[in-house]
Amino acid sequence: MKNITIAGGGLVGSLLAYVLAKKGYQVHVYERRPDMRKEVIDGGRSINLVISHRGWTSLEKAGIAEEIKEIIVPAFGRMTHDVNGDQHFYPYSIHGKSISSVSRGELNKKLMNLAEAMPNVKFTFNQKCVDVDVETGTAWFEDYNTKQTTEVKADLLVGSDGAYSAVRGKMTSLPRFNYSQQYIDHGYKEIHIPPAADGSAQLDLKALHIWPRKQFMLMGLANLDNGFTGTLFFPYEGEESFSTIETAEQAEAFFQRNFPDAMPLIPNLTEQYMSNPTSPLLIVRCSPWNHKSKVMLIGDASHAIVPFYGEGMNAGFEDVKIFTDILEELGDENMHEVLDQYSAAREKNANAIADLSLRNFIEMRDLVADPQFILRKKIEAKIYKKYPEKWMPLYSQVKFTNIPYFDAWTEGQRQDKIMEPIMALPNIAQIWDSDEVENMILKSL
Amino acid sequence: MKNITIAGGGLVGSLLAYVLAKKGYQVHVYERRPDMRKEVIDGGRSINLVISHRGWTSLEKAGIAEEIKEIIVPAFGRMTHDVNGDQHFYPYSIHGKSISSVSRGELNKKLMNLAEAMPNVKFTFNQKCVDVDVETGTAWFEDYNTKQTTEVKADLLVGSDGAYSAVRGKMTSLPRFNYSQQYIDHGYKEIHIPPAADGSAQLDLKALHIWPRKQFMLMGLANLDNGFTGTLFFPYEGEESFSTIETAEQAEAFFQRNFPDAMPLIPNLTEQYMSNPTSPLLIVRCSPWNHKSKVMLIGDASHAIVPFYGEGMNAGFEDVKIFTDILEELGDENMHEVLDQYSAAREKNANAIADLSLRNFIEMRDLVADPQFILRKKIEAKIYKKYPEKWMPLYSQVKFTNIPYFDAWTEGQRQDKIMEPIMALPNIAQIWDSDEVENMILKSL
Repeated sequence: MKNITIAGGGLVGSLLAYVLAKKGYQVHVYERRPDMRKEVIDGGRSINLVISHRGWTSLEKAGIAEEIKEIIVPAFGRMTHDVNGDQHFYPYSIHGKSISSVSRGELNKKLMNLAEAMPNVKFTFNQKCVDVDVETGTAWFEDYNTKQTTEVKADLLVGSDGAYSAVRGKMTSLPRFNYSQQYIDHGYKEIHIPPAADGSAQLDLKALHIWPRKQFMLMGLANLDNGFTGTLFFPYEGEESFSTIETAEQAEAFFQRNFPDAMPLIPNLTEQYMSNPTSPLLIVRCSPWNHKSKVMLIGDASHAIVPFYGEGMNAGFEDVKIFTDILEELGDENMHEVLDQYSAAREKNANAIADLSLRNFIEMRDLVADPQFILRKKIEAKIYKKYPEKWMPLYSQVKFTNIPYFDAWTEGQRQDKIMEPIMALPNIAQIWDSDEVENMILKSL
Repeated sequence: MKNITIAGGGLVGSLLAYVLAKKGYQVHVYERRPDMRKEVIDGGRSINLVISHRGWTSLEKAGIAEEIKEIIVPAFGRMTHDVNGDQHFYPYSIHGKSISSVSRGELNKKLMNLAEAMPNVKFTFNQKCVDVDVETGTAWFEDYNTKQTTEVKADLLVGSDGAYSAVRGKMTSLPRFNYSQQYIDHGYKEIHIPPAADGSAQLDLKALHIWPRKQFMLMGLANLDNGFTGTLFFPYEGEESFSTIETAEQAEAFFQRNFPDAMPLIPNLTEQYMSNPTSPLLIVRCSPWNHKSKVMLIGDASHAIVPFYGEGMNAGFEDVKIFTDILEELGDENMHEVLDQYSAAREKNANAIADLSLRNFIEMRDLVADPQFILRKKIEAKIYKKYPEKWMPLYSQVKFTNIPYFDAWTEGQRQDKIMEPIMALPNIAQIWDSDEVENMILKSL
């Protein structure tokens, strides 16, 4: 294997290009969009993401974690906002660990710069993937400006071209290729929360902010400039939904009713509501993630998930790590075997984080404000602190370890079963800290 | 609405063309394959199908049931064949009802002839659907012979183009269109069982024959000429699978081991095994089944299922009936509403029969030979006979009524829950016919 084509120069494609270039391969990245380092794309939206432990693990393996640390803002817990404006802080970790908020655009630019600085990596922009021959690893890219189509043949074609992947699109018609795309009932709309006039932050910078309202929620994640990216997650249809909030007046009344403490932070709220796009939330699953030795999928192209665990990019970065682990172990003489093993290793974990992310939506928009749920977290934290080798809360497993998602999810379901009878005790709020409850849990472990 | 394009002149497309033509619409059917009435297609394979009560209901509403009855062979129950060649007959119905085996090709030709005899129906063959504009209901068809592409605009475009539907393929990229294609672990291979030399049948014509072998099975369904279409349902991978039976010798040994009584019925068995194709089994689900007022999906295009309940075509015929029921009720002035209601009415039923069909595979290949399962059927038959208003076996609901699949499946799951403790009684084989067991069931109803 010498030449590798990467379709898609997003976060995962750029990281993979860098990693494979360090191994000596000739890598050519074809990106659909213009070069984001030269042109403002996505209308300048300030989408941000979270890097968790497994994301860092992959960046460390690539040797570039330190450079990324320069552009992150840590979040140490959730700050919930109730309708009265009261705030409550719930730390993510009993050990003071944090997740790292980062601007998607800034991170992508940094990864592109790192990759493009390698002599054996080339990026070409404005290239739409219009066809793929999966048997030969050949892709055809049409230049958006010149309308010229280029045929690109390589030893390996990587589809890191996102949730609407063109490479995967071609694989969908392969015999016995399993595929599903599932849109959830909610969409999202970004609402930017600027810094105060003096440049200071209007919300606690150390927290991820949530306004949980059961069927919907507003979320705020810090940016480097002391502003926050707010996101409204809201049903498309129903009594309170995008379909019933259509005018500026309705939007204002809706925010006044549900997020009164957020309103003064956002001077142009209704303008933003009316002009910012509403975007759908999509889950993609497929199998296998490769075609023989010639084509592989990675990142959102093979496993787009909903954003509620903040793990989409981390799962993609972990793909890069696991793929290169297997490549190092087996060598590149038998790429069919490498890709088969990669696909088998990742699929069940991708399915697990897809399920976990849906579960976390309900947790964030509803349960975080539920006294029973808060109590359960408290009990789990106590057990975790006293018996760390026997119990680690699901959130910690997902965000602060490299435990495979599938194993974390399995353990999380086991914990659910153990905690169910505990939480059903009639006087649990009074006795939660008792030896009796502790012994009940220990016995069922 | 005046003009209707139907992409796909299979069973469902042809029936729909006939039904819509009777309502006065101009219908043009574009079929990918050559005209099967003039050319032998599918290599002359003798695929056959089963018409059940709901299939007949739809044909009766269309007014053509009598003509179809001429080409069917009734099957009154299952005949199981064990490895010793012993046969056991299990009737489908306590009332002697039957399902109707029919040749796919003969039925399709008949439906085509009926439709084409209408002055306002036109069929064009060798037309590959190469593009669709879902907003205008326009489709482009390329002629396989002339390579000419025709643009076809109509008031409504119907995709009845099967499990690999091109119309649905275009809808897949619509915002918030849900879609999944799932291949099961088994594939199938047809093995033709000819009539005896004197033209008589080698197997009981009144039964559907099953050789249940837990992980796989052979099935036989009667043809009009006293022959049977045999189908081997077999895993692709694993110890005993298509991947391990690769030579004529291996095939012969495999049949000798598992289906010794079938071998003398099939003189050219190994030739057939080696030359007949192995085909995958696919489940397709999608939502919605329409785009506004302009495009609708029907039949396998929107809900391909595995063949183990023999309901694929019947579900498609039921689509035709329900669609025309709604069209009659609402009129065609607001087709958007007609299609929305049609989609909403059918989706959950299609999902239910997809689940039921998977369940029936396990029943056919494994449970039919299980004494506990046979006993449960016996108990259910008794309760059904004594209390027909309180209990109808799931199979009867699906095959001998028009109860919506979703309702049948819901009731079937309720019955499972009732029968589980009954079948767990340690001496159930002795006391199954007792008043005690009967009362237990009646109490939980």
